[in-house]
Amino acid sequence: MSKSIKLAVLGLGTVGTGVLNLLNDNLAELKRRSGHDITITHVGTRRHRDDIDPNICQESDLMAIVRNPNIDIVIEVIGGQTVAKEVILEAIKNGKHVVTANKALLAEHGNEIFALAEQYHVHVAYEAAVAGGIPIIKVMREALAANKIDWLAGIINGTGNFIMTEMRDKGRTFEDVLTEAQALGYAEADPTFDVAGIDAAHKLALLASIAFGIPLQFDKVYCEGITDITLQDVTYAQELGYRIKHLGIAARRYHDGQQKEYGIELRVHPTLIPEDKLLANVNGVKNAVLVNAHPLGATLYYGDGAGAGATASAVMADVMDLIRVLTVENHGHHVPHLAFIPEALSDTPVLPADQMQTGYYLRLQAKDNLGVLADVTRILSDFGINIDAILQKPAHKQGEVPVIILTLPVIESKMNDAIKKIEALDAITAKVVRIRLDELAS
Amino acid sequence: MSKSIKLAVLGLGTVGTGVLNLLNDNLAELKRRSGHDITITHVGTRRHRDDIDPNICQESDLMAIVRNPNIDIVIEVIGGQTVAKEVILEAIKNGKHVVTANKALLAEHGNEIFALAEQYHVHVAYEAAVAGGIPIIKVMREALAANKIDWLAGIINGTGNFIMTEMRDKGRTFEDVLTEAQALGYAEADPTFDVAGIDAAHKLALLASIAFGIPLQFDKVYCEGITDITLQDVTYAQELGYRIKHLGIAARRYHDGQQKEYGIELRVHPTLIPEDKLLANVNGVKNAVLVNAHPLGATLYYGDGAGAGATASAVMADVMDLIRVLTVENHGHHVPHLAFIPEALSDTPVLPADQMQTGYYLRLQAKDNLGVLADVTRILSDFGINIDAILQKPAHKQGEVPVIILTLPVIESKMNDAIKKIEALDAITAKVVRIRLDELAS
Repeated sequence: MSKSIKLAVLGLGTVGTGVLNLLNDNLAELKRRSGHDITITHVGTRRHRDDIDPNICQESDLMAIVRNPNIDIVIEVIGGQTVAKEVILEAIKNGKHVVTANKALLAEHGNEIFALAEQYHVHVAYEAAVAGGIPIIKVMREALAANKIDWLAGIINGTGNFIMTEMRDKGRTFEDVLTEAQALGYAEADPTFDVAGIDAAHKLALLASIAFGIPLQFDKVYCEGITDITLQDVTYAQELGYRIKHLGIAARRYHDGQQKEYGIELRVHPTLIPEDKLLANVNGVKNAVLVNAHPLGATLYYGDGAGAGATASAVMADVMDLIRVLTVENHGHHVPHLAFIPEALSDTPVLPADQMQTGYYLRLQAKDNLGVLADVTRILSDFGINIDAILQKPAHKQGEVPVIILTLPVIESKMNDAIKKIEALDAITAKVVRIRLDELAS
Repeated sequence: MSKSIKLAVLGLGTVGTGVLNLLNDNLAELKRRSGHDITITHVGTRRHRDDIDPNICQESDLMAIVRNPNIDIVIEVIGGQTVAKEVILEAIKNGKHVVTANKALLAEHGNEIFALAEQYHVHVAYEAAVAGGIPIIKVMREALAANKIDWLAGIINGTGNFIMTEMRDKGRTFEDVLTEAQALGYAEADPTFDVAGIDAAHKLALLASIAFGIPLQFDKVYCEGITDITLQDVTYAQELGYRIKHLGIAARRYHDGQQKEYGIELRVHPTLIPEDKLLANVNGVKNAVLVNAHPLGATLYYGDGAGAGATASAVMADVMDLIRVLTVENHGHHVPHLAFIPEALSDTPVLPADQMQTGYYLRLQAKDNLGVLADVTRILSDFGINIDAILQKPAHKQGEVPVIILTLPVIESKMNDAIKKIEALDAITAKVVRIRLDELAS
């Protein structure tokens, strides 16, 4: 009953080439695992490539490929949100299953794409869209399917993590490391997507949907990048036993004693986390996602979040899953695109930023004045904000001292109000620097 | 098309009770994800339990349960290899899908059980059998299916890891920590399965099969426990930048330039690993598995390796997978039990212990004699064994000094011969202590 499965790869950039190489290297293992023959019959490319197996048809008309009745699965690795969207929608309408690595497209247009796929009884698989080769989509949609997922926190942008790691390990500035990351090819020429957190926000939107069963809501992700992180704050954090990581965090929020959450937090921002946590020790371009679920508890998934090999691994894992679907008569009951059946998606609101709760690292620049600490702590206390630690550093400017305060979790609107009052004090000479803090407690 | 899926849970110990609790807590989430109703209709228990939902039928005749035509999936959480095996075989013959957490049974009788399941077109799922709630079976069978897995190394026994962690963190002796672990319920009254490595060997046999596509070969796993690890060696390892962890390691071995491995190493033993690796920072009762695959590279999976909640999470993830199978007409093309299709299993031999290759930590007790180090290094050199580091400690006995030597990887038979020669030296006053060492390099 062995079949011959025919694939088309649209796009021959890093990932597309990685998929071709994977099939070339591992075809024997793929057959041993699937029991079927797997062939790339078509690639979609604007320019003819001489280094491709001549048995593979090179075609610049992508629509012709996705309409070709002989092709079983379309792999979209073009990127972007225009052509990629058109070919995916057309592939779906032609009854093709689709595998894509396109996080931006899915985060922003996934609700539409998945709805069309349901209508045409095909699957759109997207393991490669989040955390590269780490199988976090399969883990959360399938392996953790019996759990209620409470929150997750992930290092889901390798460029950002490389920069934060180098700043801490080598005492280098943000700008210095970014320049190197661009030279190494980790960061794009326009690094905004990475360092402003947009790439992480795309991935977080996908993770949150499959964790909580909510529609994709990329537009509601609070997003803060790492461009403002200074070496000074990295150092102070370290003195206090923390590391600053750029995290995507998604959490259900409950009122005391309630089973059903009243809201969901979706946020991407630099975060102080305790240095002895595994997540704090995920360095360089590596990614990792920590998931807290009931009754499983905390689990963590670590690996390469980008690169040809890791991404191709995820793309072909999706293909292997789809082969099982393709080889039964009735396509069967599949894992829902967003992990939960469409009619069970929840309308729990994503909370606005000022309703989110986290701990805080605050750095204040104060005139060397004994009274100021008393004033600041009184203001925090008036807003019900509990202090976890204080670090007063020796003055480095004439007569001015940095004061670092770590707080317990607090509703952000209260912190906003407290900071306004603190900044109004005469003894406070600069804007308060604030970085969120999470103990990552289970 | 929503169906009502009927489960039977055989065994009401920690795990069985955990499964009942999970269904009680998370039924709404399970329905949102699967689209189906899920009910435990029967539990198999010798004694009637008053604390169980009265709608669940309590039954002491397990065979009657597995023959009941209304039951869709049988969950075996009895443990042991006698009754558990009988009921699983009978369930299979009655066309039931089976979920089991029974690592010992599968490692020792899995080839027979899986063959019967193939014959009857049913699935035997076993996510809970290895590393508790960490979804390592699904990850390796499905998420990494496009890779060629080269090697894996795992902390797959929580009790052993708790003991090793406490010895290092708190300078406690093996015996002292073991007594506490027994009091805390981490270790059984008879701790042999844990501390002698048998439990880890069971799990490693399963992991190796799905990594490499070989039949289960528990009897060929080289197995060494942690009972001989002394505080002295833990301390010396730390001074050299290593931690001692009890690992299960499975690796393909290649001759230079060959694509196809000539043999497979399966071994469970204490291992020095570099302290900056994530695996070295997996502490307490936690488990983690590091997998090295092509083209994915290194990925790591971390979480609770035991306990009611984590195990129930894995059991019910299997149930969720089986529900998708149950709800299609034709049971379809499933993930092969051992990840590779039965006819593609490989007969690559498991290498005997003396043909395995690892680095070594050697501790020699020598008379304070300048010549002895020259003699020892000459012997190692004669056997082609490369030294990576030497640490000579001040004498703690009158005139005797411990000498620590770290070596690069070497075939074990050579090391055996070298150690014999070293022990024959007049200046060497005790048996050479040896612990394997792995840099965990990709």
